[in-house]
Amino acid sequence: MRVLVIGGDATGMSSASQLKRRLGDSVDITVLNDQRWTSYSACGIPYWVAGEVAGGPDSLVARSPEKHRANGLDVRIGISATRIDPDNQQVSAVEVTDASAVSTFDYDHLIIATGARPLAPPIPGIDIPGVLRTHTLDDGLVAIDALEETPRNAVVVGAGFIGVEMAEACVQRELQTTVLDLAPEPMVVMDPDMGSLISKAMADHGVTFRGQEPAAEFVAGPDGRVASVRTASGDYPADIVFLGLGVRPRTELAAAAGLPTGSSGGIQIDDHCRVQGYENIWAGGDCVETRHRVSGEPVYVPLGTHANKHGRVIGLNLSGEDAVFPGIVGTAITKFMSTEIARVGLTEQQATQLGRDVTTASIVTSTKAGYFSDAEPMRVKVVADCEDGRVLGCQIVGGVSAGKRIDSAATAVWNSMTASEVVDLDLSYAPPFSGVWEPFQIAARQVLAKLR
Amino acid sequence: MRVLVIGGDATGMSSASQLKRRLGDSVDITVLNDQRWTSYSACGIPYWVAGEVAGGPDSLVARSPEKHRANGLDVRIGISATRIDPDNQQVSAVEVTDASAVSTFDYDHLIIATGARPLAPPIPGIDIPGVLRTHTLDDGLVAIDALEETPRNAVVVGAGFIGVEMAEACVQRELQTTVLDLAPEPMVVMDPDMGSLISKAMADHGVTFRGQEPAAEFVAGPDGRVASVRTASGDYPADIVFLGLGVRPRTELAAAAGLPTGSSGGIQIDDHCRVQGYENIWAGGDCVETRHRVSGEPVYVPLGTHANKHGRVIGLNLSGEDAVFPGIVGTAITKFMSTEIARVGLTEQQATQLGRDVTTASIVTSTKAGYFSDAEPMRVKVVADCEDGRVLGCQIVGGVSAGKRIDSAATAVWNSMTASEVVDLDLSYAPPFSGVWEPFQIAARQVLAKLR
Repeated sequence: MRVLVIGGDATGMSSASQLKRRLGDSVDITVLNDQRWTSYSACGIPYWVAGEVAGGPDSLVARSPEKHRANGLDVRIGISATRIDPDNQQVSAVEVTDASAVSTFDYDHLIIATGARPLAPPIPGIDIPGVLRTHTLDDGLVAIDALEETPRNAVVVGAGFIGVEMAEACVQRELQTTVLDLAPEPMVVMDPDMGSLISKAMADHGVTFRGQEPAAEFVAGPDGRVASVRTASGDYPADIVFLGLGVRPRTELAAAAGLPTGSSGGIQIDDHCRVQGYENIWAGGDCVETRHRVSGEPVYVPLGTHANKHGRVIGLNLSGEDAVFPGIVGTAITKFMSTEIARVGLTEQQATQLGRDVTTASIVTSTKAGYFSDAEPMRVKVVADCEDGRVLGCQIVGGVSAGKRIDSAATAVWNSMTASEVVDLDLSYAPPFSGVWEPFQIAARQVLAKLR
Repeated sequence: MRVLVIGGDATGMSSASQLKRRLGDSVDITVLNDQRWTSYSACGIPYWVAGEVAGGPDSLVARSPEKHRANGLDVRIGISATRIDPDNQQVSAVEVTDASAVSTFDYDHLIIATGARPLAPPIPGIDIPGVLRTHTLDDGLVAIDALEETPRNAVVVGAGFIGVEMAEACVQRELQTTVLDLAPEPMVVMDPDMGSLISKAMADHGVTFRGQEPAAEFVAGPDGRVASVRTASGDYPADIVFLGLGVRPRTELAAAAGLPTGSSGGIQIDDHCRVQGYENIWAGGDCVETRHRVSGEPVYVPLGTHANKHGRVIGLNLSGEDAVFPGIVGTAITKFMSTEIARVGLTEQQATQLGRDVTTASIVTSTKAGYFSDAEPMRVKVVADCEDGRVLGCQIVGGVSAGKRIDSAATAVWNSMTASEVVDLDLSYAPPFSGVWEPFQIAARQVLAKLR
């Protein structure tokens, strides 16, 4: 069996590795990768740029092309796929450094793991030097080089996950930092009442957050490098700019080949990670849509954790097992300095937009029993369906140890638990870890009282 | 309606408060409490003794008798119940300081919340001064007084939750500390391979753990205070001794009245927290047995979190709702210094004793992505049923942030999830919080591989 993989990161390499481990010599696997690195942690780039990760880009590489080759995978570096031909089961490619060096690859099964690319809207000046992305390891190298020039003022454009993490990196690098966003508060995956705690945390660390104030222009200085960012309300000095405007699925190849894509642009796959309607084409990771188990809708949620699970499922299926990817519940976590931020399921806004009649409760408690002097505040918001009492989502913003508590909420949402069932849960308690009722359960109790 | 409550801590006061809040003047509630304090955090005593909680015993009191009285509860302090007469719906009591001052209380409903008392086996010398308990706030005051005398050597007898927490308190107080236990490793609620990580953490902090070496005698010095602890293997100098030998339900009154008790001595209740066979007697907290949802067996697990839930359920039921306490899954957490310790469900030993055919996986990973210099090791062990793949239990020992991850495992065990379903779960990931696969899922994957 000849398996061709386009893309050498999470989905691509974990499916290839899984498959090789299980089928050995009976499968030939070729991986086309247009980057230098394979299997790296893109999520780690903000922390590397912040200076929290020792070493060069290799520190973020879980497995290099050489190691993959040693495991029997034919990993081609600097090769960019240019065309998928499903009818003839063939992919064309060129060398990244030489577009005339065309080659073709036949396959029995194709795995599309082309990932995502950062959004770059046509804002004037977006391409001038000093306006940076942090999507790839090469982006990270450029950013670290730019930081060597000892900038003083930074502007972060966009306050989603990458924006918040790059704002933290700027604080770690002791830059005077402004964060601009279209929305009124950071992190639109949270409700604004929760997001306001994040802008407060930013202010506490000297970061200026400006909501409803998108970047209108990047202005170069006399040296041609970025000098400021212009908005409708003013100019912000910027020796360095980080873009965190979100990503889009890289699915031009797939779309050109006629493969189905959804409204997000992500490839549409079935619950086995097969491209819908294609027996021998598989896809996963940041280039696909997945099913949200709470809304039932297809969603585009590019995250390393899903990408790895997709890879595992594809590898298992190609090796003869019957493996299913049963969807996601929208779990996510990040932090800004010591403020941890996490969410799962639907926010109040999302649920309302989906026409659900919901009740919410938002409580403030502490990360340890209140009598500890180092207990830190944490806020938990629970969203529940008025009809059946089911917990649709949970959001957490709080001090150290607050964030990872989202995982019990995620497991509860995954299992369609009601607020009443959540109150019953046997969650862990000792004074250094929480009050006697776990915060998620305190919020669930309040929801329950409202539902009654 | 006249409701009489015996015991003024978690179950007693939360049921009484719940009921008063809901029924107001239509219920008369009298609480008999043989201690000075109500509604206090016994779990906080080790941290208070360690010096980590500012202030006196009041710091650990969530609600004082005066506050409860202001809420309309007739809280009697220093009154000890001596007899329950179910036929005549009457309880006799005496004053703690005057056994001849007998009074009787009639009730329509009785709530038994008598709690537990520490085990004190007939070890010679167990009552000499300096051999201390940490069960009540008064115990804590005695311990803090004793620490004022600047002891140098401490022995902790018993390495369960209280023993481990008191060993930490001794380290915080800069005492030379030895911990003795009957079992080979600390924390018999963990498997020995996990327990060995705890004795290692103790050694790292200069604490000597001696397993399979129970205390045989407490030896007094010339001043009559404890001077050493004798075992079969030697003598350990001790200016202060903390007993952590576990607790027994305080159910002498209940048993004398003919109420049903189980093999643990705990009162047998139904899923509404009614004493089995009695329409108008309720019980909860450290004096009852509860149902373990994994084994299906009645178990005795005295913990504040269950006690509070029992109180809530009793309060709701007495106020006309239909509330159920659906059992526990044996979730527990503690820590020794920066080593966090948590468990849920059945250990390998427990499952084997129950005749289950189990597979286990024990993995070592880190609390953050491996490329963070401050990532700390954590070990996770998962126990699964070979027959249906169901996760029966999980144990965690690891650095800061490791422990609270037990809650997602607890939610999974609560929902009877299989190892395969656990691998599918959408748990949170960002590099400062974990590797791309949550440790619980890595262990579940290994279990799954073994099951196949």
